[in-house]
Amino acid sequence: MIPTDEDLAQARVRLRDRVRRTPILHIDGRDVGFPGALTLKLEQLQHTGSFKARGALNAVLTIPAGATSVTAASGGNHGAAVAWAAHQAGVHATIFVPSFSPQVKQDAIRRYGADLHLVDGFYADALQASRQYAADHEVVHVDAYDEVATVAGQSTVGSELAEQIPVGDVVIVGCGGGGLFAGVSLALRGRNKVIAAEPETAPSLASAIAAGRPVDIDVDRTGVAVDSLGARRAGAIATAVALDQRSQVLLAPDQAIRRAQRQLWDNLRIAAEPGGATAFAAALHHARDLPGERITVLISGANS
Amino acid sequence: MIPTDEDLAQARVRLRDRVRRTPILHIDGRDVGFPGALTLKLEQLQHTGSFKARGALNAVLTIPAGATSVTAASGGNHGAAVAWAAHQAGVHATIFVPSFSPQVKQDAIRRYGADLHLVDGFYADALQASRQYAADHEVVHVDAYDEVATVAGQSTVGSELAEQIPVGDVVIVGCGGGGLFAGVSLALRGRNKVIAAEPETAPSLASAIAAGRPVDIDVDRTGVAVDSLGARRAGAIATAVALDQRSQVLLAPDQAIRRAQRQLWDNLRIAAEPGGATAFAAALHHARDLPGERITVLISGANS
Repeated sequence: MIPTDEDLAQARVRLRDRVRRTPILHIDGRDVGFPGALTLKLEQLQHTGSFKARGALNAVLTIPAGATSVTAASGGNHGAAVAWAAHQAGVHATIFVPSFSPQVKQDAIRRYGADLHLVDGFYADALQASRQYAADHEVVHVDAYDEVATVAGQSTVGSELAEQIPVGDVVIVGCGGGGLFAGVSLALRGRNKVIAAEPETAPSLASAIAAGRPVDIDVDRTGVAVDSLGARRAGAIATAVALDQRSQVLLAPDQAIRRAQRQLWDNLRIAAEPGGATAFAAALHHARDLPGERITVLISGANS
Repeated sequence: MIPTDEDLAQARVRLRDRVRRTPILHIDGRDVGFPGALTLKLEQLQHTGSFKARGALNAVLTIPAGATSVTAASGGNHGAAVAWAAHQAGVHATIFVPSFSPQVKQDAIRRYGADLHLVDGFYADALQASRQYAADHEVVHVDAYDEVATVAGQSTVGSELAEQIPVGDVVIVGCGGGGLFAGVSLALRGRNKVIAAEPETAPSLASAIAAGRPVDIDVDRTGVAVDSLGARRAGAIATAVALDQRSQVLLAPDQAIRRAQRQLWDNLRIAAEPGGATAFAAALHHARDLPGERITVLISGANS
């Protein structure tokens, strides 16, 4: 089920004053080897260090009346965001992450007061564990990307951009399961073309578009952005949005992602984790093939 | 000689499109233990990682026609900024820094193609060496803070703020020799009260205000912000501006500066060097004594 305009509007009102309106920065692309101007949206400044705070808070604020506990699976950022959102809302959170999730993310989850469980394997394995936990204990499951409330929360990145950038700018966002991509695409529909950027090591949305439906892919566990963009399967919502909007996906090699991280730091003193720098990496890597001249790139997280 | 309104206006035009217009971020102060709203101006995103790029570029772009070489003394940030500005303008730069200047700053100076000389002692000793070099080799000396062109360049932080924050916001900026403080105070005169924040270990402007003129102070070499805010003597320009505007100075203990750095990182994923976090530290440390309810804090550098 794709979020409706009403879902998006409600999320916008619900999250106003509860999440940070993150700023944009205009740079001369030549500073980083890009032929033209670039606009960066600095979403790594968001609560919990990633955009995930938006979707998590929107989801936690809309759990059924009387529910006092939530659970979630995550590579780390969604887990920290749900832990933070639960703390804000006064409910308890139990988070499942793959054991290779970065320490900084595990620490954040604990710091916000959530119970943390490490799961051998990938995000998909943590997801199975959290769903089992939700069923066994009758707590609310907050999906990382394939849920209306989550996607509607992420869409507020897009509604902010609609007030910050001109009509026609091309917007590039990182994509794992596709919650951010779907939300921003819906919010900017008809106003700005939104492109998904995936690591070459985990092309879940590209594969879903090719197949016409979400399909399991082989995720390269050594990929630099696997903890944040390593979903084995794109969300049904993201896939539907991508097929509906005929969305384009750009793949970024790991080397380009690492280089993008370094350039963000060396030239801009912006700290970005690999997944948070993947849209920027894709813009630089595919600079000559981008449609349109005005490019906005989302820096989406800084937890590594 | 205090920069005139004409100096400020010319700097604004000269630097437009040559320096980054740095964004502001509104945060809930309670996220960092501050009772109220805070606005941060993210000037650490500026070219070379600090506001110094503005004053350096304005100075280098106004050297006499025919001059092909500049020199400067610096704790590091001004040196990197002059090296960058010289590279932009196609002139040569020779930079003198105290030997304890952080490696990251020395590396930046070299990366922009400048000649770097390490000087035993403090900023004041590097300044003596650079002045001698300027006299011996007839090259243009670009002062770090006590020169009209430099202060006029820094004032563009203030003219941007005039477009970004409401009339009446109190603005807190870090202060070493006082070029930034003077420039921002001049640009916002009659619009916003500007407060200088100094480390307790190097209260050069506070001492100058008390004495009614710039005086030498003992700089504690172990101070955490000594490389960027460790001027032994406030500038004559900054002192005159402070006396004219009856400016207030807030002192920040080293411990508060370190804590501020950690809070900026933990809560906001903002990298700031100690000097760049000193205004934020002063705001938090003196939260109960600040005049006015709306506070804007400048994050001024990220090179450590």
